[in-house]
Amino acid sequence: MNTYSGYINKLIEELSALPGIGEKSAGRLAFHIINMPEAKVNRLADAMIQARSRVRYCKECFTLTDEEICPICANPKRDHRTIMVLENTRDLSAYEKTGKYDGVYHVLHGAISPMLGIGPNDIRLKELIERLKGDVEEVIIATNSSLEGETTAMYIGKLIKPTGIRVTRIASGVPVGGDLENIDEVTLLRALEGRTEL
Amino acid sequence: MNTYSGYINKLIEELSALPGIGEKSAGRLAFHIINMPEAKVNRLADAMIQARSRVRYCKECFTLTDEEICPICANPKRDHRTIMVLENTRDLSAYEKTGKYDGVYHVLHGAISPMLGIGPNDIRLKELIERLKGDVEEVIIATNSSLEGETTAMYIGKLIKPTGIRVTRIASGVPVGGDLENIDEVTLLRALEGRTEL
Repeated sequence: MNTYSGYINKLIEELSALPGIGEKSAGRLAFHIINMPEAKVNRLADAMIQARSRVRYCKECFTLTDEEICPICANPKRDHRTIMVLENTRDLSAYEKTGKYDGVYHVLHGAISPMLGIGPNDIRLKELIERLKGDVEEVIIATNSSLEGETTAMYIGKLIKPTGIRVTRIASGVPVGGDLENIDEVTLLRALEGRTEL
Repeated sequence: MNTYSGYINKLIEELSALPGIGEKSAGRLAFHIINMPEAKVNRLADAMIQARSRVRYCKECFTLTDEEICPICANPKRDHRTIMVLENTRDLSAYEKTGKYDGVYHVLHGAISPMLGIGPNDIRLKELIERLKGDVEEVIIATNSSLEGETTAMYIGKLIKPTGIRVTRIASGVPVGGDLENIDEVTLLRALEGRTEL
């Protein structure tokens, strides 16, 4: 790529460090950006910087949000006695899009993976246990149906069971190995309806 | 996407305006960016702004460069009497990577397309004609072998022919390493027409 100017090379290099963007796409994107109106480039750059610096974890559920407490946790109309446990904010958004779940969430930011050396302490699990000291009726475990997601579900199930709080797992209407965020709303709803006791 | 925080939504929106990035990829990229170290996000944003504001057209060949005259045009070791005409800077980079071409270039920034309403005056064509007043021996037309590229090549060929300057077109045919069965009929026919003695 050393035939381009320094600034173009630098931009291509930074862009190709992003996930799913190879050298070819980075080149295409770079030239697109160079040909964009300056105001639009500034807006894109600013959106990145703002999102990175302003977005933080909700103090309740640990989803990514602009506020100290996210709009869902701050909403008194939501059922705060039902907590759905998810791996990440994108999964939360997928369930939220169904418009049919009125409980609250807990975002783990990961899943237990002995292979990758990710243990229970590396995800927001003790924060979940802490929340259970409050008035909680049911914990719905909606981690992905991948090996890591299932391991995490089992682990959390065993942990919560002795407390007497109802703990359920979304049904395997979700295809095995599928990422929640890529699944259609009907399947997500069916999985919610068919949840079973752990 | 209104389940995300405002800053995340804004970033996803700006990212999905880029070519080849749908809403899903934009979401993935946005969350990746939010989880990147702050310094890296700033570097990426800065690379965009710098590239957009610093990169300009070479005064000789109109490729995108940091300098008034690009390194190729400024290089006295290049053969300035041979000019290769290309549609854009990425095509220039592709030829430059071969390391075997030692002439200079002329970047048109587009191709003639009656369909899209792009005429000879919408690309850097008169700048090419201007350059031919200097000491030029050969013009190699390396526009794409698309309809627009061929139209442009024909047009330039007719324009230059009367000046007595040698004007050539890069060969089109079966790409090296390409399987015949995967190549379109037009290319196969052109390869047949352009066959050479062994």
